[in-house]
Amino acid sequence: MHVTSEAAQKAIDGALKKAEETGTRMCIAVVDSGGALKAFYRMDDAWVGSIDIAIKKARTAVYFGMPSGEIGQLSQPGKPLYGIEHSNDGMITFPGGVPIVDDEGFMSGAIGVSGSSVENDDLVARAGVETIGVCDLPEHPWRT
Amino acid sequence: MHVTSEAAQKAIDGALKKAEETGTRMCIAVVDSGGALKAFYRMDDAWVGSIDIAIKKARTAVYFGMPSGEIGQLSQPGKPLYGIEHSNDGMITFPGGVPIVDDEGFMSGAIGVSGSSVENDDLVARAGVETIGVCDLPEHPWRT
Amino acid sequence: MHVTSEAAQKAIDGALKKAEETGTRMCIAVVDSGGALKAFYRMDDAWVGSIDIAIKKARTAVYFGMPSGEIGQLSQPGKPLYGIEHSNDGMITFPGGVPIVDDEGFMSGAIGVSGSSVENDDLVARAGVETIGVCDLPEHPWRT
Amino acid sequence: MHVTSEAAQKAIDGALKKAEETGTRMCIAVVDSGGALKAFYRMDDAWVGSIDIAIKKARTAVYFGMPSGEIGQLSQPGKPLYGIEHSNDGMITFPGGVPIVDDEGFMSGAIGVSGSSVENDDLVARAGVETIGVCDLPEHPWRT
Repeated sequence: MHVTSEAAQKAIDGALKKAEETGTRMCIAVVDSGGALKAFYRMDDAWVGSIDIAIKKARTAVYFGMPSGEIGQLSQPGKPLYGIEHSNDGMITFPGGVPIVDDEGFMSGAIGVSGSSVENDDLVARAGVETIGVCDLPEHPWRT
Repeated sequence: MHVTSEAAQKAIDGALKKAEETGTRMCIAVVDSGGALKAFYRMDDAWVGSIDIAIKKARTAVYFGMPSGEIGQLSQPGKPLYGIEHSNDGMITFPGGVPIVDDEGFMSGAIGVSGSSVENDDLVARAGVETIGVCDLPEHPWRT
Repeated sequence: MHVTSEAAQKAIDGALKKAEETGTRMCIAVVDSGGALKAFYRMDDAWVGSIDIAIKKARTAVYFGMPSGEIGQLSQPGKPLYGIEHSNDGMITFPGGVPIVDDEGFMSGAIGVSGSSVENDDLVARAGVETIGVCDLPEHPWRT
Repeated sequence: MHVTSEAAQKAIDGALKKAEETGTRMCIAVVDSGGALKAFYRMDDAWVGSIDIAIKKARTAVYFGMPSGEIGQLSQPGKPLYGIEHSNDGMITFPGGVPIVDDEGFMSGAIGVSGSSVENDDLVARAGVETIGVCDLPEHPWRT
């Protein structure tokens, strides 16, 4: 089950509102539960380099059903997933990518945000998700 | 000079309206004058394969300041630009990508649409552009 | 607003002069504000591997509006942007890439240099920028 | 033996002069005899999509020691090299790429030009070569 266009747009609008509140310039991407791009929005004066990062954060979150930053903790030198960012055409493993989960526990997609500090990126991404669902999945194997 | 976020969203909304009128399921991409993604929208049940095509059509149009289909006519077997689609990480040279030109003749970006016949793709792309400008550039060297 | 051909050539000439003074063999790249290549020069006997690094350093600087080395400090293991170099087709995050900023605070592009120590690369890059502008951007959101 | 920096710059200046005479806006690339980028210049208002094409034309010419357009004649549907453009990370097989050959018959590199009609591209490329050598190689196996 995939996030609908309507829900994706709602998530982007929610993220956008938080970006404006925080005075940040963001790239915001929504992908479906297979990682395919559903909607994207780049604010004026956002970093050009953030386009790809926002999309990759969203993909990273949906590929493993967890916030991108959690994977980043597991992929530090010496940790179990060291180097995982070399897979899947390049993943981004710092915060700013979060799953979109509906009220039955299905993951329908993810949102990725880039353009400010990782704290702000994560804050804005979560604000987007909260307009249409939650970020937390039940125990794996969860469903998509 | 790049298309603004507000104008990009308006172009997508205009394209979307035409897509709904024609009963088609489209991917719609807007890029800035350098080819960087500015906004994207995938309608529910649009082909997944159209995501990349919509983006590449928009890039193709902005890279050469002309509708993607015009390049396709020049790149048929035996024609001067045969094989040009192998450049720039892959171009799409059939209709559906059109430049966005403002009333002073500047090209600010392009829109690319994929999801139906090339006639419908082109129709929907032009409807998007018409909400914010025109598709026709003055004689090259035009300005961006 | 993009760096002009004339300014790009002037920046390369300035960098080249410093490279000759320091007895180094450099690759020097200038990109516009969207990261597209504007001018490039490889000195005789420069490392072949430096071609791609010079271009990627310039892109890295312009993609985030800061010297490439600053991103490198944020992307060390355990730091907030660990792994960011996997985005944007590969970024180079050590010194040698610096933005080109005009006297009104607009970033018009960036220069990237590779071919010697990172200290020399950075020195030569800054000498190039100084012929046409400054390296320091005002507070984000800056303008391009 | 590779084209020197000095010669590469001279070739670019010669091409540039012809581009200005013909009122065209060109991207001009020089590669060495291994296909590695030696020098590059993008005129203001040249097509952004021509950056990659100019470089690929130069590589195509040097990879096979003949003008890019000659390969294009051999790679049409039904011809012996049909599809060769899929090799070498994408080749461009229409006119505008020509080898640089010195007075002893050594190929030291190639020049590639993109930005106008293929006739103009070829004209400008040959004007560049003529400032430092000739375009015609002796019978293969020639030497590099």
